Amino acid sequence: MSKPTPISGFPEWLPPQRMIEQYVLDHIRNTFELYGFAPLETRAVEPLDQLLRKGETSKEVYVVRRLHEDPAEPTGDDALGLHFDLTVPFARYVLENAGRLQFPFRRYQIQKVWRGERPQEGRYREFLQADIDIVDRDTLPAHYEAELPLVIGDALSGLPLGQSAGQSPILIQVNNRKVCEGFYRGIGLTDPEAALRAVDKLDKIGPDRVATLLVDTAGASPAQAKACLALAEISAPDASFAEAVQALGVQDPLLDEGLAELVAVVETAAAHSPGLCVADLRIARGLDYYTGTVYETQLRGYERFGSICSGGRYDNLATAGSTRFPGVGISIGVSRLLGLLFGAGALTISRSVPTCVLVALGAEEQRPASNRIAEALRRRGIPTEVSPSAAKFGKQIRYAERRGIPYVWFPGVDGATDEVKDIRSGDQAPAVADVWSPPTGDLRPVLG
Amino acid sequence: MSKPTPISGFPEWLPPQRMIEQYVLDHIRNTFELYGFAPLETRAVEPLDQLLRKGETSKEVYVVRRLHEDPAEPTGDDALGLHFDLTVPFARYVLENAGRLQFPFRRYQIQKVWRGERPQEGRYREFLQADIDIVDRDTLPAHYEAELPLVIGDALSGLPLGQSAGQSPILIQVNNRKVCEGFYRGIGLTDPEAALRAVDKLDKIGPDRVATLLVDTAGASPAQAKACLALAEISAPDASFAEAVQALGVQDPLLDEGLAELVAVVETAAAHSPGLCVADLRIARGLDYYTGTVYETQLRGYERFGSICSGGRYDNLATAGSTRFPGVGISIGVSRLLGLLFGAGALTISRSVPTCVLVALGAEEQRPASNRIAEALRRRGIPTEVSPSAAKFGKQIRYAERRGIPYVWFPGVDGATDEVKDIRSGDQAPAVADVWSPPTGDLRPVLG
Repeated sequence: MSKPTPISGFPEWLPPQRMIEQYVLDHIRNTFELYGFAPLETRAVEPLDQLLRKGETSKEVYVVRRLHEDPAEPTGDDALGLHFDLTVPFARYVLENAGRLQFPFRRYQIQKVWRGERPQEGRYREFLQADIDIVDRDTLPAHYEAELPLVIGDALSGLPLGQSAGQSPILIQVNNRKVCEGFYRGIGLTDPEAALRAVDKLDKIGPDRVATLLVDTAGASPAQAKACLALAEISAPDASFAEAVQALGVQDPLLDEGLAELVAVVETAAAHSPGLCVADLRIARGLDYYTGTVYETQLRGYERFGSICSGGRYDNLATAGSTRFPGVGISIGVSRLLGLLFGAGALTISRSVPTCVLVALGAEEQRPASNRIAEALRRRGIPTEVSPSAAKFGKQIRYAERRGIPYVWFPGVDGATDEVKDIRSGDQAPAVADVWSPPTGDLRPVLG
Repeated sequence: MSKPTPISGFPEWLPPQRMIEQYVLDHIRNTFELYGFAPLETRAVEPLDQLLRKGETSKEVYVVRRLHEDPAEPTGDDALGLHFDLTVPFARYVLENAGRLQFPFRRYQIQKVWRGERPQEGRYREFLQADIDIVDRDTLPAHYEAELPLVIGDALSGLPLGQSAGQSPILIQVNNRKVCEGFYRGIGLTDPEAALRAVDKLDKIGPDRVATLLVDTAGASPAQAKACLALAEISAPDASFAEAVQALGVQDPLLDEGLAELVAVVETAAAHSPGLCVADLRIARGLDYYTGTVYETQLRGYERFGSICSGGRYDNLATAGSTRFPGVGISIGVSRLLGLLFGAGALTISRSVPTCVLVALGAEEQRPASNRIAEALRRRGIPTEVSPSAAKFGKQIRYAERRGIPYVWFPGVDGATDEVKDIRSGDQAPAVADVWSPPTGDLRPVLG
């Protein structure tokens, strides 16, 4: 076999990076469970026609077929594709199993997704997402839209992402579709979706060209375009944004509803974690299925990365006959986040293996005795390996050093007491495998 | 959207089943880490030509292509397929990253794999495997072959799989290719692989037809076929199997080497966990890359399921020029195991959500106060939800009941003390969110 080479867009981490990813995933998952979200997984494939319902994603889909299917023969209903997100499969799962689920249904889902896009920094063809959604039958109370930022705030704080003490490492930017649509309607625009798509380009093309786009594609007058831009400029970490909107003098009931919901989101977040959320009325989100709150998230100090966690409320993604399943969800782009942080050299881990103790071996015949010591340590939750060979102790210590294993255990021979050495300090002391424990901070690898 | 239907061979669990799966995976993973295996993931796709290196698997592979690739145009080197196991991708990963890995390299890998086989009970097209492997550069000491059954024994014991007290729920059947090949060579057979393939069919077609097959395909005389069957009949939970082999009077150095290794495997396992392992000389494993110990595993009481965990030692799976990376690995068929146990109604979980406490809501205006209580409980690691609405308390209690949430928390109004109710016993008592804890057994869902 010649040496294999990577496949562009399909990242694979080295062991220390994968240890960091696993640490981050455990922290995210633990937070999701603290908020009562239950785990769920869906299959990797969906019927191709379902994946292609939204025309704009068709270019990104990977088709899957068995090698010995005849490619010339149309496979019709059986054609399958790899899912490109976790929201579409989840909506399908809810419809398929509605009679067997308890609503409101809170689930988290951490899985790979695939998109056939051109790979670039932080953009992959295979990547990991961590999603939470809450769906209900018929109606979904707006307070869930205020809850999700708290979960994301907890999931990503506690990670050493370079933030100042007491500051959240992320800033969640929130808006509400009802605010935009109500406002656009209130100033007399008849195609609020076209207006939204134009405003969505604000960061990319700037206000002047957005104004032109509003005139050209959304039928806006220059004055209406100016009003849309005035709305998009409003941003505040508290309820004061609502006064700024009201000062623009536009009257519309949907606008009022949206403002009340957005105030609740911002105030709930401020009570939980000051500085976590900001109302930012330029946030539009391209996907047209959002109907209420929308979220984007910046990592402080890495704003150039763009949003690392996005989502929103959707009312029409899962409907069966007259039954609707409105939901709200948010998705952490785990591979994207980690890929960019690895690229910036921003994350380290205290060791590249779970192992806390290496049990040394004086002679190969003593392996059973070293196994007994390892068993005693593992029984009390201490990750332990036995040395690969009865090489000189110096070589066995280097085995531990190269992996960052902090302790080497020397079994006592001929009735002597065992000793354990902290190979970082060189301290060595007598120890008994049934009672010795490392300091808590050494038990598991920790993120630096 | 019309109601979607399942896709045959792509199982999806309902929430309680997925909770069980997550519990089982956490237990498996924790065990792997206690033995110092580091987590690893590889991409889902491999170059198609690499997947097809072993001719017999070609029928099972799923091909992946971008929707807008021209299917008429041959994609050549770029053709990709979904991996059908985790061993082939791991061997490729080791070769690709050899310069950046520490050897011996111990990794675990828990991922979905895909095979285009005909679906049937316990056989899926998409399924989850949990693998451990140890690879080294140039040589791999045989003691690792004795270590893997200990890991699997620990990973699957502690799960309530219906075993008697003190008994392992599994029986690992071990053999060693060197024993078979040495023995076949010792009796004068020139095609030991053909003999192995014939003996591998013993369970399916019985000894008479295996004897015929040995004569027809492996060039055996009737006496040689009889000797092969005599070897395959030997089975013992201790080193006595070696005497039974020696009593057959065959001399071969490879046979002796294999017997010594197999004795070490069986005795190491007996010292760790009596009854965990049995030497069973009929175990052959179909895959021809094994070169030493091979493993199959039966779940006690469910022997009809076949092997739920298999593997072995391989010396030639990863080679680059003159450098070899011998390894030993074993794989738990998690989806297969759980699918069969779910079908037998053999596993239950104490609740279908992680939530331990539901904080009730007297009125929607009190949501911020209930949020504060939930935050205090979560800060101390207690999974908590706030009630979806300020419905009558009876309805809020039923919300908890339907999900198996054991505790409902009633916030005190107008300065009164909070109270917490165990809704199983009906007991209700005053409580303070900053200090109250549930009994340890209630904190997380437990397997029944």
